[in-house]
Amino acid sequence: MISAAIIGASGYSGAELLRLLSARNDVRLKKVTAHTFAGKKVEELYPVFSGRVEMEFEAFSDRLEGVDVAFVALPSGEAMNIVPQLVPSVEHIIDLSGDFRLPSATVYEKYYQHQHVSPSLLQTAVYGLPELFFDAIRQARLVANPGCYPTAAIIALAPVLKKGIIGSRGIVIDSLSGVSGAGRSSSVDLSFAEVNENVRAYKIGRHQHAPEMQSVLEGQSGGPVSISFVPHLVPITRGIYTTIHADLKVEATESDLIELYESFYQHAPFVRIKRQIPQIRDVLYTNYCDIGLTIDHHSNQLVIISVIDNLMKGAAGQAVQNMNIMFGLPQETGLQI
Amino acid sequence: MISAAIIGASGYSGAELLRLLSARNDVRLKKVTAHTFAGKKVEELYPVFSGRVEMEFEAFSDRLEGVDVAFVALPSGEAMNIVPQLVPSVEHIIDLSGDFRLPSATVYEKYYQHQHVSPSLLQTAVYGLPELFFDAIRQARLVANPGCYPTAAIIALAPVLKKGIIGSRGIVIDSLSGVSGAGRSSSVDLSFAEVNENVRAYKIGRHQHAPEMQSVLEGQSGGPVSISFVPHLVPITRGIYTTIHADLKVEATESDLIELYESFYQHAPFVRIKRQIPQIRDVLYTNYCDIGLTIDHHSNQLVIISVIDNLMKGAAGQAVQNMNIMFGLPQETGLQI
Amino acid sequence: MISAAIIGASGYSGAELLRLLSARNDVRLKKVTAHTFAGKKVEELYPVFSGRVEMEFEAFSDRLEGVDVAFVALPSGEAMNIVPQLVPSVEHIIDLSGDFRLPSATVYEKYYQHQHVSPSLLQTAVYGLPELFFDAIRQARLVANPGCYPTAAIIALAPVLKKGIIGSRGIVIDSLSGVSGAGRSSSVDLSFAEVNENVRAYKIGRHQHAPEMQSVLEGQSGGPVSISFVPHLVPITRGIYTTIHADLKVEATESDLIELYESFYQHAPFVRIKRQIPQIRDVLYTNYCDIGLTIDHHSNQLVIISVIDNLMKGAAGQAVQNMNIMFGLPQETGLQI
Amino acid sequence: MISAAIIGASGYSGAELLRLLSARNDVRLKKVTAHTFAGKKVEELYPVFSGRVEMEFEAFSDRLEGVDVAFVALPSGEAMNIVPQLVPSVEHIIDLSGDFRLPSATVYEKYYQHQHVSPSLLQTAVYGLPELFFDAIRQARLVANPGCYPTAAIIALAPVLKKGIIGSRGIVIDSLSGVSGAGRSSSVDLSFAEVNENVRAYKIGRHQHAPEMQSVLEGQSGGPVSISFVPHLVPITRGIYTTIHADLKVEATESDLIELYESFYQHAPFVRIKRQIPQIRDVLYTNYCDIGLTIDHHSNQLVIISVIDNLMKGAAGQAVQNMNIMFGLPQETGLQI
Repeated sequence: MISAAIIGASGYSGAELLRLLSARNDVRLKKVTAHTFAGKKVEELYPVFSGRVEMEFEAFSDRLEGVDVAFVALPSGEAMNIVPQLVPSVEHIIDLSGDFRLPSATVYEKYYQHQHVSPSLLQTAVYGLPELFFDAIRQARLVANPGCYPTAAIIALAPVLKKGIIGSRGIVIDSLSGVSGAGRSSSVDLSFAEVNENVRAYKIGRHQHAPEMQSVLEGQSGGPVSISFVPHLVPITRGIYTTIHADLKVEATESDLIELYESFYQHAPFVRIKRQIPQIRDVLYTNYCDIGLTIDHHSNQLVIISVIDNLMKGAAGQAVQNMNIMFGLPQETGLQI
Repeated sequence: MISAAIIGASGYSGAELLRLLSARNDVRLKKVTAHTFAGKKVEELYPVFSGRVEMEFEAFSDRLEGVDVAFVALPSGEAMNIVPQLVPSVEHIIDLSGDFRLPSATVYEKYYQHQHVSPSLLQTAVYGLPELFFDAIRQARLVANPGCYPTAAIIALAPVLKKGIIGSRGIVIDSLSGVSGAGRSSSVDLSFAEVNENVRAYKIGRHQHAPEMQSVLEGQSGGPVSISFVPHLVPITRGIYTTIHADLKVEATESDLIELYESFYQHAPFVRIKRQIPQIRDVLYTNYCDIGLTIDHHSNQLVIISVIDNLMKGAAGQAVQNMNIMFGLPQETGLQI
Repeated sequence: MISAAIIGASGYSGAELLRLLSARNDVRLKKVTAHTFAGKKVEELYPVFSGRVEMEFEAFSDRLEGVDVAFVALPSGEAMNIVPQLVPSVEHIIDLSGDFRLPSATVYEKYYQHQHVSPSLLQTAVYGLPELFFDAIRQARLVANPGCYPTAAIIALAPVLKKGIIGSRGIVIDSLSGVSGAGRSSSVDLSFAEVNENVRAYKIGRHQHAPEMQSVLEGQSGGPVSISFVPHLVPITRGIYTTIHADLKVEATESDLIELYESFYQHAPFVRIKRQIPQIRDVLYTNYCDIGLTIDHHSNQLVIISVIDNLMKGAAGQAVQNMNIMFGLPQETGLQI
Repeated sequence: MISAAIIGASGYSGAELLRLLSARNDVRLKKVTAHTFAGKKVEELYPVFSGRVEMEFEAFSDRLEGVDVAFVALPSGEAMNIVPQLVPSVEHIIDLSGDFRLPSATVYEKYYQHQHVSPSLLQTAVYGLPELFFDAIRQARLVANPGCYPTAAIIALAPVLKKGIIGSRGIVIDSLSGVSGAGRSSSVDLSFAEVNENVRAYKIGRHQHAPEMQSVLEGQSGGPVSISFVPHLVPITRGIYTTIHADLKVEATESDLIELYESFYQHAPFVRIKRQIPQIRDVLYTNYCDIGLTIDHHSNQLVIISVIDNLMKGAAGQAVQNMNIMFGLPQETGLQI
């Protein structure tokens, strides 16, 4: 029996963790914290859990005796204050924020616009993308759970970058995200009347997930990589649709590339290489990343489509996958429905 | 008083033409045809027109005596059978299908997968994008009203291609379209339950609008242009959001480029160059094309956002704009709300 | 030329007034105020107006020299502080809030949960439903523009209540509203992720529009009326769908009732009595109220469907209709598209 | 190990059965049929099952040796032709169509507009609403799985009708349904462009679910019951929201009524009596029916809100619940997430 805590359980990722963990027989939820809602029943905030989760939100405390794994689902900027307090008493920490994902405090400070308070932990955190870093995750104490956009983009690009099949400069990544990606929020910009029947790009060329993608992809490529990343908000609740264009550098057919991807991901149960163009519906409420490949002969570009559920493979599902790996369980445990 | 007919008025573009033309004092709708609905009142099919349009759909007849302008809103493949029948008796024809837009029957047949029955008219048709071809439209007898995707993409790219500011190869055009772009249709793929909470790309590298863009852009560039065009279906009813990436070839600031675009489109009342990132909401039910520009310094690419209402600037609105020009009226007549 | 001001122009009703009034040749917008956005250009908040409305939001001032009509689009509770300041200098005032609609300060205070500061003006205000109170509106100085729910419900019920065709007790009014009805808001409850793929009722039996309906309907009936009103939030941006059930008290066919309604509303250009079941699409962006009638023989009830666009006939459109009447213009002026 | 077959597995209810049954360790899916798609892999039609369900759709055959339970998910009118063929060889049959739910062939023929070909089976079928008919279901060979609207309405009304707390005449049932309730369909009326930003009622006073509700409710009441049922289509994919108004016949507080419901449903694990107004989000992808109660003192009516996921408690989830009961398993087996 794994004893687990969720720190910051009132947001959408926290609720998704609650959904996944409360359904398991081999995990016991010992504590869920949410400072704004401390003392409130979970089912008051999320009535969906009525009859299923009989817990109260607690205020945060650094005393987590007997907790084997803590999921930190706080906003970026808050997590880095909390994680260091957990390290002494909790064996395994999975942080879902952006605070421990980037290669250095300098890059962090440029994109997140505030100082990093725990640069030494930043150095030791393991980037929690199991498809690339399985072995490191197995031994990690602190896993930085990847961002939603980077998860989709890195899985899509790693095989062809590693093999030198595409050029490493000027890779275009156009991503479409559902609104839950912005968290449980009260901004006018995310109100139904503004989002519905609308599409808009945002943070063009300056989104904090761009350096996250770039640094991991450079690790795969072994050299500099430049990307042009444009995130868009579309009127769906969940899901990310990523369309990637990159210059083909070798002669290859789509079949060749499909084989390459299937081989590259043969031990990755959550990556599906598709013969059809992927769509968001097919991954909703699952931990899958669906990948589709097309060669555009007009421009000699490889077009890669990569699709995930942002709250599952893009957040809570991947966090649970990481937990499974850290505890020596099959990756798919509790993620098969 | 202009006497007008709409041939194929039962689809969404036809209904939008009805909306625009029935509100005008200087246009008299003489005939609306729709062979499936012949004999039915317009308001039975479109109750929105109850109390406003007191007409019946008629069967098509080539006898359009006294009609000054005919709008042909039939599907591609049907229009080319009808337009030649109209030429003898109707002075001005505006065809909204794809049948008269491409440079040759050969290209047409490759992308539309059937033979072109009227290649000589194809040669004489004028491409109805007023922002580039105002003078030719003014004298045209047959205007090929541009496709929705090409309208947004060509307006976005013409200034920088013409001036050599971007590279002409490997231009990425990722477009997101509302469902009305596929027409009034009964396919399962367009049913609410399939489209809602979903996104999917389609016809990657083989959409019939790609050669339309390419041929017009090559005319602007003066040399070969290659594009990689990926259309996507998103869960909105109206609107197209187009995100374009192209390699910057000169040193330029965003201000420089904004100035260039403002100057290029100084006589184009429906093109708005924005300082903010455009969004679909701002052009809904209008004939505007909103353009936003960002330089992505990571990849030295120019990112251009171009947004239209697919039924207005992407179809019926542009058709009315073309009619205005053909009849010597101010372009904005009847399109200001 | 009518000189107009909009007080509180930054909300959705204010923006809709801007859209309607800026398109007219016989109205000059002299002043638009919005205290949070004072000094900002209208097009910064609403980019849709770029190129069409070249105005700045101003701070409120009670000096409205030369203004013939002021539209007050402030929240309920704020309007009653402002309207008295306008009375001395502005000839015609149309208030879109709930502050001047109820029969007494006592009822107001019960439902709006704060004191009424201007009970004498409350007494003199004319309820601005032109279909029932045309003559009083023509002579009014202060018009209380009806609520969105009451507009739909009262138009639906007035003919049969007045004629004694239905019972006046236990009338069921189930209404479904789009989100714009709640105003331009930053609450979590109205965020896309909460509203999309969801439906919920709210304020069952205690919504402030219930006494508004009741008091007007009692005026029509000539005796006590009791209603059970349940408003629901559905995932659409605009529109109200109201389904009403009432006991039939006389023998009548649907044709009889359609005739009765057509006769009752023969001088009401915005009421359309339909032979089909109405739907929201048919009234979007129009000032129409579409009415459908069905007799349910199982329960001997009359089912009335009443549909409006909440921002048009439910707010700004009706306000403009009232202005037209106050200035002796045809009701439809500027509302025909 | 239970061996199961799904007859007519290509629709939304069939796909939901696939999702639920394929996740279970104690059920083996032996056969899935879908005549239009015979020979096609399940994952071709529903890519979501890729990597999870490795089956092909088969043509129907009446030879179902070794199948313990057959789920029939065919349209009404088709099921009654198939079910009699299954009876000889299959011990347990759960029919999700409307063919075996009504009290007599006469009523069936009136509402379904065609003859009933198997009136004797109609007589023996057990109505599969476990909250009322648990014991009969346990012993049934043929279960008629209830309609989606009746499930929500009957659970909401049974306690107060049985106890005489509400009047049995003129009960108003206004229901809002997501589009998946209409099945996987290619009609224009269900296309995204028609459903989005729209609401419409349909089949007022003549929906085939009305007699289903009525006959079951009369069984509970012990006397005649009359209802006025108006179904509405709203732009959501899944879920039904039902608002009920009935005359209160006794003095009671909301607390009294909540107690009554909790007691009535104390052995019903999927009925949750709520203190807040229910919403669809809280039951999505679950088998719960959430009930909320408010007394409207203006009209002395009881307002009951009843919410389900139409594909779960309204179809496939309830069918699995019935299977569990027929096989002596805990009702919740495989339905807890």
